[in-house]
Amino acid sequence: MTATLRFTKMHGLGNDFMVVDGVRQPFKFSGEQIGRWGDRRFGIGFDQLLLVEPSPQPDADFRYRIFNCDGSEVEQCGNGARCFARFVHDQGLTDKTEIRVVTAKGVIVPRLEPDGAVTVNMGVPRFEPDDIPFVAEREAVIHSLEVAGERYDITVVSMGNPHAVQVVADVDAFPVADLGPQIEQHPRFPRKVNAGFMQIVARDQIRLRVFERAAGETLACGTGACAAVVAGIRRGLLGASVLVHTRGGDLTIRWEGEGQPVWMTGPAVTVYEGEITL
Amino acid sequence: MTATLRFTKMHGLGNDFMVVDGVRQPFKFSGEQIGRWGDRRFGIGFDQLLLVEPSPQPDADFRYRIFNCDGSEVEQCGNGARCFARFVHDQGLTDKTEIRVVTAKGVIVPRLEPDGAVTVNMGVPRFEPDDIPFVAEREAVIHSLEVAGERYDITVVSMGNPHAVQVVADVDAFPVADLGPQIEQHPRFPRKVNAGFMQIVARDQIRLRVFERAAGETLACGTGACAAVVAGIRRGLLGASVLVHTRGGDLTIRWEGEGQPVWMTGPAVTVYEGEITL
Repeated sequence: MTATLRFTKMHGLGNDFMVVDGVRQPFKFSGEQIGRWGDRRFGIGFDQLLLVEPSPQPDADFRYRIFNCDGSEVEQCGNGARCFARFVHDQGLTDKTEIRVVTAKGVIVPRLEPDGAVTVNMGVPRFEPDDIPFVAEREAVIHSLEVAGERYDITVVSMGNPHAVQVVADVDAFPVADLGPQIEQHPRFPRKVNAGFMQIVARDQIRLRVFERAAGETLACGTGACAAVVAGIRRGLLGASVLVHTRGGDLTIRWEGEGQPVWMTGPAVTVYEGEITL
Repeated sequence: MTATLRFTKMHGLGNDFMVVDGVRQPFKFSGEQIGRWGDRRFGIGFDQLLLVEPSPQPDADFRYRIFNCDGSEVEQCGNGARCFARFVHDQGLTDKTEIRVVTAKGVIVPRLEPDGAVTVNMGVPRFEPDDIPFVAEREAVIHSLEVAGERYDITVVSMGNPHAVQVVADVDAFPVADLGPQIEQHPRFPRKVNAGFMQIVARDQIRLRVFERAAGETLACGTGACAAVVAGIRRGLLGASVLVHTRGGDLTIRWEGEGQPVWMTGPAVTVYEGEITL
């Protein structure tokens, strides 16, 4: 007998997913299968596989899990959370617009906006050097980082993962490919760091490029957008709600200040419905 | 009303296609649509769109057209011809195994083999310098080409497109990325050339890498495999049927000699069925 698996191809700012309804078609994947499907020429092609499952606990509606193409599981993914919310709604798995979902990092509650965008609580940012982790004597809004003989003013932020953000005059002209890896692997970041480069357009608008840990420059990094806006607000350069232009598209980030969570609103796009023979 | 388009994602040796049944769902595409669908992160992702249409003439079963992501039409594509034959058979559009199809280059007759592979007549190779085109005083099996002060023994072959093939000791170790572009743009090839590098494994087996005109090194080049085998046979190194190992997979090439067509047998793989909202 030939079994088939239905899936939906989605993306959030170009971070693309094979999304599988594991509620109505329970299924176990092997890492080898995910790798084969993830190949962009021989398979379906995606960054991650997003699997929606029934909630294992009564206070949530679903569980979702996100797998890299090597079969490893991803803990946190803002683009994935938005696609998840749009998917369960569009597929008729729920009619709620605030959806409680169990992730590897605990329960999150993405909210579907009337225009189809999705807002996700990205957690409370942390700034203590030990929380990043970052080697420094004390917490500060701006730290000076020496890279290849030059000094750069960075703001460090943990959004669950570590970020080092700096303000640049022209984000297109900035040598992200040169400086990004040097900051990423700087000895003052013992677990490496995501290096963000933002150009302030106005108090409610920035342009952003992020060199991601182990991934290089990506089209859009959700936690990187949060970290950049938080850094800009702490430096007094930005207001509480900021439109972030990335190469993959736009995000809106809101933050009310110390101790408050960061809210990210952005697109989740369904590209096509697919069916693959197992 | 929301219209949807059904398609099949296929590949031949990693050269991948969005295949559309334009017989049962006639449809006109714009170049802009193809480009959007072709994007590997924001769209479906493919090298080319392959459109199957009813035959415009009584002596053929179908017509197919192949479009690049910029909307331009491709004249000849061995990988596409194999996927076409497999597609019309698997979708129940025909029960023939020899399928006459009108292409931009005339009628071709791909044959579906019992194991699901497909054999395509790739045409009669030509060797006259003017047919390549190649600047040389007369036709010869081996020409000496000077590149950056070194001399290389090449065999020139036209398979409808120009090829310059050389024998190397170890195809993995050979500096294809360095030498490929220098041969491709050599002044003795007025319309540029596809540069092939083959390692002879046995009289019935080669390993091949091809630096394609305007495309760079690709996973597999069907006409490049034909040209390499023809060159090897002309040089007396190969028999009439040769298994060609490329980075994308294996092809079998058969050639009976001067004036005869080259036959290529290779895989055509269906990856998934899809449906996209227009």
